Formats: sequence, C-alpha cells, structure tokens
Amino acid sequence: MTERKEFRDLAEPDAARDAIASLDLSPEPESVPLSEARGRVLAERVDAGIDVPGFDRASMDGYAVRARDTFGADEADPVALDLVGAVHAGEPPEVTVDPGTCAEVSTGAVMPDGADAVVMVERTDERPTEGGEPDRIAFRTSVAPGDHVMAAGADIAAGARALGPGTRLTPREIGLLSALGVDEVPVRGRPTVGIVSTGDELVRPGDDLDPSRGEIYDVNSTTIAAGVTEAGGEPVLYPHAGDDYAEMERLLREAADECDLVLSSGSTSASAVDVIYRVIEERGDLLLHGVAVKPGKPMLIGRLDRADGGESAYVGLPGYPVSALTIFRTFVAPAIREAAGLPEPRTATVEGRMAVRERYAEGRLRLMPVGLLDLGDDAAADGAAADGPAGDSTAPIVYPVDKGSGATTSLVEADGVVAVDPDTEYLEAGEPVTVRLFSPDVRPPTLLGVGEDDPAVNRLLDRIESPRYLPVGSREGYRRLRDGVPDVAVTAGPTDRDVDDVVLGGWNREWGLVVPAGNPEDVEGLADLLDRDLRFVNRPTGTGLRRSLDDALAELADERSAARGDLTERIDGYGLTLRAFESPVRRVLDGDADAGLGLRETAERLGCGFVPLGDQRVAVRAAADRVGREAVASLATELDDDGIADLIAGLAGYSA
Amino acid sequence: MTERKEFRDLAEPDAARDAIASLDLSPEPESVPLSEARGRVLAERVDAGIDVPGFDRASMDGYAVRARDTFGADEADPVALDLVGAVHAGEPPEVTVDPGTCAEVSTGAVMPDGADAVVMVERTDERPTEGGEPDRIAFRTSVAPGDHVMAAGADIAAGARALGPGTRLTPREIGLLSALGVDEVPVRGRPTVGIVSTGDELVRPGDDLDPSRGEIYDVNSTTIAAGVTEAGGEPVLYPHAGDDYAEMERLLREAADECDLVLSSGSTSASAVDVIYRVIEERGDLLLHGVAVKPGKPMLIGRLDRADGGESAYVGLPGYPVSALTIFRTFVAPAIREAAGLPEPRTATVEGRMAVRERYAEGRLRLMPVGLLDLGDDAAADGAAADGPAGDSTAPIVYPVDKGSGATTSLVEADGVVAVDPDTEYLEAGEPVTVRLFSPDVRPPTLLGVGEDDPAVNRLLDRIESPRYLPVGSREGYRRLRDGVPDVAVTAGPTDRDVDDVVLGGWNREWGLVVPAGNPEDVEGLADLLDRDLRFVNRPTGTGLRRSLDDALAELADERSAARGDLTERIDGYGLTLRAFESPVRRVLDGDADAGLGLRETAERLGCGFVPLGDQRVAVRAAADRVGREAVASLATELDDDGIADLIAGLAGYSA
Repeated sequence: MTERKEFRDLAEPDAARDAIASLDLSPEPESVPLSEARGRVLAERVDAGIDVPGFDRASMDGYAVRARDTFGADEADPVALDLVGAVHAGEPPEVTVDPGTCAEVSTGAVMPDGADAVVMVERTDERPTEGGEPDRIAFRTSVAPGDHVMAAGADIAAGARALGPGTRLTPREIGLLSALGVDEVPVRGRPTVGIVSTGDELVRPGDDLDPSRGEIYDVNSTTIAAGVTEAGGEPVLYPHAGDDYAEMERLLREAADECDLVLSSGSTSASAVDVIYRVIEERGDLLLHGVAVKPGKPMLIGRLDRADGGESAYVGLPGYPVSALTIFRTFVAPAIREAAGLPEPRTATVEGRMAVRERYAEGRLRLMPVGLLDLGDDAAADGAAADGPAGDSTAPIVYPVDKGSGATTSLVEADGVVAVDPDTEYLEAGEPVTVRLFSPDVRPPTLLGVGEDDPAVNRLLDRIESPRYLPVGSREGYRRLRDGVPDVAVTAGPTDRDVDDVVLGGWNREWGLVVPAGNPEDVEGLADLLDRDLRFVNRPTGTGLRRSLDDALAELADERSAARGDLTERIDGYGLTLRAFESPVRRVLDGDADAGLGLRETAERLGCGFVPLGDQRVAVRAAADRVGREAVASLATELDDDGIADLIAGLAGYSA
Repeated sequence: MTERKEFRDLAEPDAARDAIASLDLSPEPESVPLSEARGRVLAERVDAGIDVPGFDRASMDGYAVRARDTFGADEADPVALDLVGAVHAGEPPEVTVDPGTCAEVSTGAVMPDGADAVVMVERTDERPTEGGEPDRIAFRTSVAPGDHVMAAGADIAAGARALGPGTRLTPREIGLLSALGVDEVPVRGRPTVGIVSTGDELVRPGDDLDPSRGEIYDVNSTTIAAGVTEAGGEPVLYPHAGDDYAEMERLLREAADECDLVLSSGSTSASAVDVIYRVIEERGDLLLHGVAVKPGKPMLIGRLDRADGGESAYVGLPGYPVSALTIFRTFVAPAIREAAGLPEPRTATVEGRMAVRERYAEGRLRLMPVGLLDLGDDAAADGAAADGPAGDSTAPIVYPVDKGSGATTSLVEADGVVAVDPDTEYLEAGEPVTVRLFSPDVRPPTLLGVGEDDPAVNRLLDRIESPRYLPVGSREGYRRLRDGVPDVAVTAGPTDRDVDDVVLGGWNREWGLVVPAGNPEDVEGLADLLDRDLRFVNRPTGTGLRRSLDDALAELADERSAARGDLTERIDGYGLTLRAFESPVRRVLDGDADAGLGLRETAERLGCGFVPLGDQRVAVRAAADRVGREAVASLATELDDDGIADLIAGLAGYSA
C-alpha cells in the first residue's frame, strides 16, 4: 500500500490567508473595447481628452440671440428681432447673429457667432412679414448671457480628471467614457486560473459514464470554473490527467506556464498528492501544507516556476465538492477578486440567526455548511429566536446542513458557510451569525419544505417561487416541523407525533408492489413476497410507503398468528432500502428485482406492472406559526380544490 | 418651423408601468452548454437522470469488509481478515469479499461484491505473511453494515427533483448539474433589445468628431446597451439613423423584426419623434405618450408589428443621458429582468438619509438624481441627521445632484435616483429615503471632496480608494464644507469664510499668465493685458486662480489709483471664463488667445510659455466632524511630508 501523507502539523487559517496573499496573481493590464468594458475595473486614471461639449451648445429649442437685445422684454412689451436663419443639431452654423437679429436653433445646435443666449420657443411668437423682408420673432421674455447655452467644456473639459484608477465600470461610467469618445479602455487584467483535475474515476459532464468502473462526473472542475468567473477571473480547464503521473506533471507545468494561478482538486489518490508535491518541490515552493480548518485540512499552497522564469501561484483544493467550494470561496476567491481589482460583493454575506442550538467543539476552525430561510417580516411576531441575542427577528434563520461532505446535493441544500471558531462550544438558538454565501447570487429560499417524496409535491414546488424541499421522508419531516425550522412538512400515511400544525391540503395515492411489465411472476400480493422466491426492493424506514407496507405486514402477521419480524426475515430484500421513490421501480425495470415498493403512478409512468396494496393520504402541513407567511399562503392557494385537481391531473392512482 | 409635439395629457407613472408590463418581451427558452450557464435561469425543472453515485461507493480509504466479520473487534482484541485484493477509484472491482476476507479500497472505489462496509485505514494494521499465503489485515474496530459506504443514489437518485424552474444558476447549481452529467442546460432566453439612436449630431465613440458641426459622441446607445446586459438582456446596436427619416423608419422596422424590445433615444429633433409616431401608428399600437415624471416626460410606449406577424415592444427614452438612464432603470430594466426571469438584485437599492433639506413642489413624480456618501460607523456619533426620523445614523447620506440633465458628468456624480412623490413639498434633512442605484454594481464613494481643480489633487485622489471629487472651485467647495455634506474641501489662495475645519496638508503652486511657446508677444505681466491688444482667457469667479488674479488686479488698480472695474473692462476676454484649469491653456495652445490664466505646471506640461505672477497655497481641509473617519485618516496619511513630496514631484512650480 502506498505510503499516505499525514497532516500532523496543521497551519492556522490566518497563515493560509497570509500565504495566499503573498502569492502574486495579478495579470498585466489590458485594453478592451468600450462595448466589452462593463464590469471591468479601470487600470489607470482616465482624463478627458476633449471638451464636452466641444462647442457652445444650445440646450433648448428656440432662438439664439444677443442677450442684451432682449433686455426689458416681457409679456406686455415684447421685443422683436429679425430672423436671419436657423441652426440645427449636427450642422455647422451658417449665420451670424448681429445686433437686432436672431437665429432659430434646435437643442444641441452650435451657437452661431454673435449669439450668447437662447430664448425658449414657448416664450416667443413668429411674426411673418411679406415682400421679401425677413420674418421677425417677438420675444416675451428677457434672457441673460449664457442662458440655455452649455459652454464648450462646461460638462467636462479637456485635461480634467474623469475617472480614477480602480473604478468599476457600470453603465454610467461607460456613458462618460462614450462622451469622451473613448472606445478602448485600459482595464485591470483578469487573472487566468488553470484548473487541473485528477482522478481516473472522473468523467466530464456530457461524456458517457460507466458506474461499474466507479466512474462519476467531475463536479469540481465546472463548479470552481464558475466560481472563478464569478470572482472576476478567467478559468481554463485542462484535460483530465487521470492518475497518469507523468501526464499530471506535464499538465501542472503547462498550466503554470499559462496561468496566474493553478488549482487542482478532485484527486482521491494519495499518490496524486505525491506528484504535486514533487513538482512543487522540484520546480517551485511549497508554502503550506495542511490547514486547521474543517473541511479543507489537506489544502496545499505554493508556487510553481514557469519555463519563462516567472512563477504561478498554486492552491490544492480538497476533493469533495462542498469542501472544495467552501475552501475556494473562503480562501481563493478573495485573492482572485483582489488581483482583478474587484471588491467583495455586498451580497456575498448575510447576517442570520441560528434556528437551533448547534454543538461544536472540535479544536479547529469549522466552516459549517448552513441553509437559510428568509422569514422576512412575516415572522417578526413569533419564532423561538425572536427574543434571542440577535434582537433582529427579521434576519433569516440559519440551520446546519450536514449530509457528509461527499454529497453534491449539499451544494444546493446549503446556501453558504458559517465560520465557527475552534474555541466555540455551542452556537445558541437565536445567536446572530454571519453566513458567507456560496455565491453573491445565492438567494435564500422563501419557503422550506421537508418530508415525503411525491410526484405531486414536485409539481406543487414548480408552481411557487424559490422553494427548497428536502425529501427526508414523512417521519423525519414531521419531526423537523416540530423542531421549528421548516415551514411545511409533507407526510404520507398516518403520523404519530403531536405537532402544532395546520393541514393546508392533500390527496390520496395508490401504493403497492411494482413488478415487471405484464407481471411475469403473477405476483398477487404481499404473501407472494413471503412464500415465494422473489427478489424485493424496499424503501427506508420513515417514509410513508414503508410505513404503509409495515402496517400491512403487521396485519398479515396477525392473520397468520406470526410475529412481524418472522415475516420480514422471509422477504429477500426487505432490508434493501433505496432512498428515492423511483429507485425500487428502476431496479425492477433493470431486471435486478422481481418486485419493488412503489406507487401506481411511477409504475405506469416507467412502464411497469403494478399490484395495488392500498391508498394512503398525502398531507401538506404547515407549522402553525408560519401559516401567516406570504410564501405559505401562496402555497395554500395552490392547494384549494382546483389546485389539487390540477396537481394530480394525469397522475395514475391519485385522487383528491 | 416644424410643428412640435406637445405633451399635455401626461399619463401617471403607474400607467406607464402597467403599459410596459402589458408588453411581451419574453424570448423563447434556449439550451446552453453547462460552461456558459452561470448566471442564467432554468427554464424548466431538472430531474436527476441517473443515480449519484451510480454505485455503492467507498467513502474512505481503507478496507472493504463484511461488517459481520468485524463484530467484536476492538483495540485490545483485533480481528484479522485475509486480504484478497484491491479496488481503486475508477476501476471495476475484480475481487469478491467472501466471509473472512477483505479488500483494500480507496475513496471513491466501487464496493466489491460481498462487502457492505469500509473500515478506515487508520484503524487497521497490515500483517504481512510469507510463503505465498495472503497478507492479513488486523481490524481494531467493528463497523456496521453501510459504514463509510455511500449507497448508489444516496446523494440523489434517478427520478428525483434536482432543481426547480426559475432557479438562478450559480456555481453550486452548476456543480449539481455536473454531478448529473448534464452538459446542455435549458434556460430562459435573454430578451433581445434593439437600440436605435437618431440624431445627425451623434458620432460613435472612436470615430472622428467635428465639434464645429455640433457633433457629440453618442452616450445613450452605449450606456443603455450596458444597462441591457446588466439587466439580463442582449443588446443590439443598430447603425445611426441620423435624421434621415426613411432610414430611421427602415431601421425601426428592422429592429422590431429582430428584437423583443426596441428602444430609441437621443433624438433632439421633434420630427424624429413624428417618424416614430407614424411607424407605430401605421404598424403597431401606441399605448402611451408622455408620462408625468421628471425627467422623462416625453416617454413613448407602444408595440411594433413584425413582418412575420408577431410584434415587438417599443419604448422611447428621453435624449439626455441621465434622463435616459433614469427612465431605463426605473421603467425598462425591471421589464427586461422580468422577461429574463431574474430578480431585482438586492444591491439595486440603498436606504439612505437626506443630508440636506430639499424643497420640491412640482406636481409630478420627480426622479431626483442623488449622490451618496457612506459614512459607515465612523459618523454614528454626530452629524445633523443622526437624530432624524431615520434613526439609523449609519445609513449613507444622500444629497441632490443637479447639474442640468444635459450633463454627462451627472452620470458619475450621482449614484442613483430618489423618487419624490408629486405631493411632497420638502424632504427634510435626516429623512430616510430609498435610493435606486443606477446599477447594482454602483458603490457609494467612501470619501467626498470638493473644491479647486489641481493636478496634485488629481494625483492624491488616485492614491485613495473610491473617492469622489467635485471640482467646483475653492469658494463653492468651502461653502459646501460649511454646509456639512463633503468630508474635505480643497482651497487655493485665501479663504474668507469661517468654517470648522482641520487642514490636513497642502502645498504651494505658481500661477500666472500662460502664453504661446517662446512668448512671442513678450508679455511681462498683468499690465500688458490692460495696455496692449491681447486676447485673454480667464477662470470663473470662485476659483483660487481667479481670486489671486483679482487680488493682483486690485493691487495694480491701487498703484494706478484706478477702480478695479475700470481695469478689468480693458482686458479683452476678462469675462471669458473657462471651467477647467487646463482650458485657458488649451485656448492659448490652439492660437485662440494670447494669454490665459493658469499654472506653471500646465504651461510647461503642454509646452506653452509662462509669465509668473505669484505663488498660492493649496490646502486640503477636512470638516472637523469627519476627521475621525477612516477614509479621511487615510487621506491625511498621504499628506504627511513624504506624501506631499511624492504628490508634487515633477510638477513644475510646485513646492511644499
């Protein structure tokens, strides 16, 4: 067995931050066309190269005059001047305004020579004359020199400081640059970030997957690439190195030559880490190995020499997706933003309050994945945490998400992480915490549901805005509802607990044994599972389907005067439980089982046979203290009679 | 003169919102590669198509065992099993774990047949044997079935709901889609927004400008295009229509055929509006014309028929840049975001408090451009507004910016707009207001300075983070400092007022008359301006340069026993004042003047001659109640002896 690297002398997280800060990721400034400059950061100050406007400009439709000629004019006693011509925007003036004359001007026109003010058209009258004499214009008001004229350079003059270095270019800055005629903008470069993924088991999304070889899709490369873009960097994905060490070394060196920063992640093999070590030791510096943070202990920070004599920064991320994203977001993204000249987005953190008490005493910094629920103003009146130290009962509630860091679904069930200090023993319910969101674009869900997997529930979720639903089964869902975090729980079948809830609506669904199409084994009921040699697939304890199955088995045991345990022992596969409601059906479909616990709906949709065993009630239950929330109310609207009819339309075995 | 459209029956702003809401901008959904999906919005629910993981997966490095074989094992009494092989990640297992045996597995490996749990390597010892017998592994712990194994589908199972419609795709969702092997993602389309700009005077940035024809760079097209991108739309810039009406009509129709929404703006010509009217009337619907909002009165909302029988939405924006961006941001951007499925960014509005009392009574909704200054926690202790109704003295302060809507510099001097109801007469100092930022990426400056234009000030500003500086001249700057809005004022020359300020630092600069290179007219001093026929260019009253000039003229008047006014009357161009400090020098450079008021620094930098008239002191003054602010302190640091030396290094005529 290969010697495995141990991480005994862990660095403090601050040392990791310092090490990353000591790396130079800053690319050279570059020049981009104005049309691509939005979101970029000015590399240097931009001074105005021209006067804006470039000429004395009429700022009203009206008549250009010598102001002095209008002195004394008013409604009662207008002054009339000879009209000598007109100047329109975009035309050179071909008239001169001598004393006693005026010229028509439109907004934006160049002021003709001699004129020093504009009288707006609304304060004038035309007085046509005949016989070849010029028309005359009567002015019912006087103006001062400069009135309704924008002098050349009055907006911004040549030589003036227009925008400072470090300015983020939003539409308005684009506007000012346009006014100055700037079409190429000097901006900070985007750090180029190479992503090298290793591991023979990794397959790029879109390619064919062979699970029998243990292949899985590569999650980290795409996740981190998206994170790099979001932080203002330019990701470069390198082809898979697999576990071919020579190839891995070649790719690392290539990435170092081409990028400001190289990230690797995803290798579950200790030998891959050895290769990275060796490359860094031979051609670079290892600054730090192993950080006292959970997750992310095996983080590597170093520098890689380049063929051209320069160097590239290197950070090795943990392999599990949530860990990789957490470490990226906490340590790496800030360095990329810094190099790109971008500030941390204001939306990157959220102040929340703990929904539950969370115990912690692990002796190192914990970056705890958490979910958020934004109760908004709805819940200001109640909720356990309202009187907590946060004082701000409108802050979102925060609950830990711990599915094990190997789960990719944690990525979307958690919204971010809370940093818990090594010496913190407890986070109290109601305690204010700062959540670093996985992305500044993450928005906490407006509704949190938990409970049974059900196709009609899936449809229901599609109809409301940004819900989160955790299919933890009926029993666990109902328990969580009691503990106060979710808004609603969906239960199937009977419930035992005593929870202060309000049933918003529900439906019935037919459950039973799913068998291959045509029911080749002629399965007729539960007894066949006991008495014949059939391979069965079950659902886990705590699901409504399993509960109904066990109730039916208990009945059968009574009939046979046997203990239920004796019966279940005789079912081949009773202990083989699959987490999702379609999974047993898919096993049957794949020929790996003769019968699976499931719904008529699933059986018919996937083209299997079905042996009905009963109907069970699915109920959508809201926590009593959340019924008043807007999101819960809008859910309830979808559960009126018409709503239910619509939700279950076309679902086989469903009834209201 | 063309008949001008009047806007007498103005619609209420809500009616404008309703009209825009009634337009259909929604494009068809589309499919994008996963690598381009970040930031997009799911068009439909995505269910898992595969089990993740696709196999029972070892989640630790260690040994796969039958759990039952380890029962009873502990540190004192280990259990030893025969090692029958190894399975690594990405390899199909080629061993079976029979009772009494085990197999080495690495994290991510497929569990070999027979095994149902993994013992982590740290709890085992290798016991090599000799003579061809298999090695034995001692287990110092027992495990339960399923320990350190992630069952197939345990992360997410085929058929389960993975992501709902309307989900914004951030890195974590990209991660989950990767895990599911999805490489083409069904997303909401981006509305295509055509931008048609009209007006003979408009020139695209980068092209040559002829100011003598009244040409100006087109600001609105690029600004609005950037705003469209930011709101989640796809801008299409159409070539300039000029004021050629046939061409304008052709472009409008082409844009309608190709886009979900057509925007026009920038035409200052009433006739252009007539063409748009005619096109809409002949081939479309005019929904609304003229809205009771300042700015934006002449807004047009309608529909344009397409050649293919469909229709495109149309909105006509006002011509002035700030007005166009304000109306775009208030009425149009929300509709684009809605069509794109994107929520209003949380950073798009900021709660602030008025820094000053602002009078308003205009009978229609006013979208007042305002600047923001984020005093942060620094100023919690004082400030006039701290006891105002906002109660929140850490909210940024808000001050009106009113340079006339024709000024493009307002774009960057204002941060957003405050909507003031028609029936509001006053906004009180300290009153809480909601500021709609021009962009969610706008960050209020951390420091606000006002006062004299000066090249060393420009350098100083480059050294601090996101300052804003308004070059309003010494007198106006000092007045504003007294009134309490800015942090610092820069004055040049003497000041008259009594302001509670602290001088952070300063320097001297040499001023005088800038003349053509080589001083061809042999100008020796002020007297030449009076006594000879020279064309002069001045700076405005209120600037430090002008103040020093006027003081010198007063002295000269004393010498000659004349009134100062008599002297100034004799200077050709005394009344010709240019706003920026370089402008008089540029006039001299262009041969349009024989002498200009200016600095030795500017004269030498631009290659002119210089006739010195004196030195003046430039002082950077902080409001006494802002001295404690972090941003002011960091400015002060740049103004220590070393800092000043550095700031004025190489600036001709500057001294500390």
